[in-house]
Amino acid sequence: VTLNRDAVGQRSETVRRANLSAIVRELHLHGPLSRSNLVTRTGLTRSAIRALIGEFVGAGIVSEERSAPLGAPGRPSPVVRPDPESSMVVALEISVDSLAVALVGFGGKVLELERVDRPRAHLSVDDIVADLADRARPLLKRVPATGALLGVGVAVVGVVRRTDGFVRMAPNLGWKDVPLGDVLRRALGLRVPISLANEADLGALAEHRRGAAAGVDDVLYISGEVGVGGGLIVGGRPLTGAAGYGGEVGHIPINHDGAACRCGSVGCWETEVGEMALLRRAGHAQSGGREGVEAVLRDAAGGWDAALGALDEVGRWLGIGLAGLVNVFNPQLVVLGGLFQRIHPFVARTIELELDRLALPVSRSLVRVVPSALAADAPLIGAAEMAFEAFLADPAIWLRDREALAVVQSA
Amino acid sequence: VTLNRDAVGQRSETVRRANLSAIVRELHLHGPLSRSNLVTRTGLTRSAIRALIGEFVGAGIVSEERSAPLGAPGRPSPVVRPDPESSMVVALEISVDSLAVALVGFGGKVLELERVDRPRAHLSVDDIVADLADRARPLLKRVPATGALLGVGVAVVGVVRRTDGFVRMAPNLGWKDVPLGDVLRRALGLRVPISLANEADLGALAEHRRGAAAGVDDVLYISGEVGVGGGLIVGGRPLTGAAGYGGEVGHIPINHDGAACRCGSVGCWETEVGEMALLRRAGHAQSGGREGVEAVLRDAAGGWDAALGALDEVGRWLGIGLAGLVNVFNPQLVVLGGLFQRIHPFVARTIELELDRLALPVSRSLVRVVPSALAADAPLIGAAEMAFEAFLADPAIWLRDREALAVVQSA
Repeated sequence: VTLNRDAVGQRSETVRRANLSAIVRELHLHGPLSRSNLVTRTGLTRSAIRALIGEFVGAGIVSEERSAPLGAPGRPSPVVRPDPESSMVVALEISVDSLAVALVGFGGKVLELERVDRPRAHLSVDDIVADLADRARPLLKRVPATGALLGVGVAVVGVVRRTDGFVRMAPNLGWKDVPLGDVLRRALGLRVPISLANEADLGALAEHRRGAAAGVDDVLYISGEVGVGGGLIVGGRPLTGAAGYGGEVGHIPINHDGAACRCGSVGCWETEVGEMALLRRAGHAQSGGREGVEAVLRDAAGGWDAALGALDEVGRWLGIGLAGLVNVFNPQLVVLGGLFQRIHPFVARTIELELDRLALPVSRSLVRVVPSALAADAPLIGAAEMAFEAFLADPAIWLRDREALAVVQSA
Repeated sequence: VTLNRDAVGQRSETVRRANLSAIVRELHLHGPLSRSNLVTRTGLTRSAIRALIGEFVGAGIVSEERSAPLGAPGRPSPVVRPDPESSMVVALEISVDSLAVALVGFGGKVLELERVDRPRAHLSVDDIVADLADRARPLLKRVPATGALLGVGVAVVGVVRRTDGFVRMAPNLGWKDVPLGDVLRRALGLRVPISLANEADLGALAEHRRGAAAGVDDVLYISGEVGVGGGLIVGGRPLTGAAGYGGEVGHIPINHDGAACRCGSVGCWETEVGEMALLRRAGHAQSGGREGVEAVLRDAAGGWDAALGALDEVGRWLGIGLAGLVNVFNPQLVVLGGLFQRIHPFVARTIELELDRLALPVSRSLVRVVPSALAADAPLIGAAEMAFEAFLADPAIWLRDREALAVVQSA
């Protein structure tokens, strides 16, 4: 029910660019495809596909090869194969317990990935950025010299203004109002676009494109750590909100006589389901971190009551919060990420029971709750996908400017 | 971040139809516009606009007139005027306390509108449909004989499956699993499309197109009656959910030790902010209905403590629930409809204070809370807009089939 501006005032050049985009997107998301398959998927004619593929072959970003006949009748359709080494993005992640860097090629191939633990102590923006830049440099060395680097995507455990990568708040990092996009741009010394977003939003994007929610249009991705983040896919598109701050499900007021939250409010969802709530209920120190969580999971696997009871209580509050979100969003799928992916086996049944009790039957009957498929790497993969987006949306610009986009490395 | 299917495989006929759609939509939403204004709004060339307008003039749905020169330099641009009598829809509403019918013309002109009280007693589907059909017949007599009726839109206080207008549940009507779309189709004896939706979803659509939220892309419309409904606009588009059941904000669990809800759950938002909660807190009978609410508002205006205290408590819980929704959706605007529009002057300040206390500052600072502009008629106007949608999306089909679409009235 919106004005279809895409189709207003279309000229043939606009149509050509849209068609290039459709082909590139299919190849990026699904990998090598036969020309016949591309005809089916894009709705373009066979001759249009041939001409457009020719442009990509000329630019060196796809190759074509004759497929094996497989005994099928008729002429075999050539297979179009995206070349991951031709066009790449760098993905970075600043998470509660780790930093990560990755080099991802066209077609979604992960060429390099490094994840290192980091202490939870509050480090300065400059220290973290310097560390990330040091780890990114060897990856950048692998990028061919001209125009092959499309962009950099960054996942941050915080509330990020999308337009300029300004971190409004990141309580787990101890940051407030940090121009992280600018700082990273200077540190990396690259001339390609750098985009930043909240890590739960990017986890949702990754699960939607390449994980548990592939092909599903209405998805809630709920990720637990110290805090609780949400990434929402509505009608096939990410819900960002007016300024990119949407999805902060961790701060839904859920228990009016509950505990004080780090955000300054009271009884937020994360005070009942976050890592500290789990540790506290299991009789551990709230500050026990990942090791504490591992201990609780070991105890639960061993059948210890305190651990099982704590997980059950977290599962109950997870179900209560999810019931409200299911009623509001009518999703087909809830994907549990981060901490919630790890505890899923212990909380799955309680969540289902709470949904039965609290969600409206019409929406409840349509929804499944599953663990994340990409697990801890979901936000990093999502950051790569975000960095690919400008290329996927208008590859014509990149084909034209390819020679002009030299990789300028500061190192 | 979605596959732009609109632009895939476009042919010139597709482009022409999209351009016709863009023009019709501008005229419908904004009324008479000069050709120059249409050029600016659609991005089409002056000559394209002239040719396409010619088609509409030929079909008799718009007229052109030379505008007064107004002393401006240059040739005055002709004004294109939608003809409300040329293309109409019928809107119907089944609400808690009333039934309503309207005839709305192209351009949004309300040609007829009748609203009648109805008792809250549970009436049969057949009785209500017969009553609505009787009231719709005089309106249909006003429709010119051939092809001028585009469709029928129906707002229902219940959970509606969009695909076929099947009412899954309507506790206020005492209905469950009612094929209302089919029953209405038979009773009206019309061959035009009939579409049904939840009344809060349609209230949101109406406020977004013609009310308090015109031009705003991220909107929460929250409507109170006996129950609480929500209609959500996300990135300019209605959030429907996987099956059209989205927006059921009334059943967000908000008070874990709260009262039993009619839905079978406990502590739902509507048990704290719905009409019965207001009446109970003000010392009235819960079943007091509209008269009870009017009495509370009179008492509050007169400064009576019991009424003011009850409104304040409802405002507090409204603020608590809105804080969570603001954190999840990061909207620019919250529009309060129905009961909440009527009590707005008494609860506005408390809502703001609760948002200050509970919502994340980044999202809180961006959101305004305003009363509905269309008040009680928002769902009915939204039903009309829904009925216009197929015409707005592809007017070419309607121009072609105009002669074939005879209005067949059963009366």
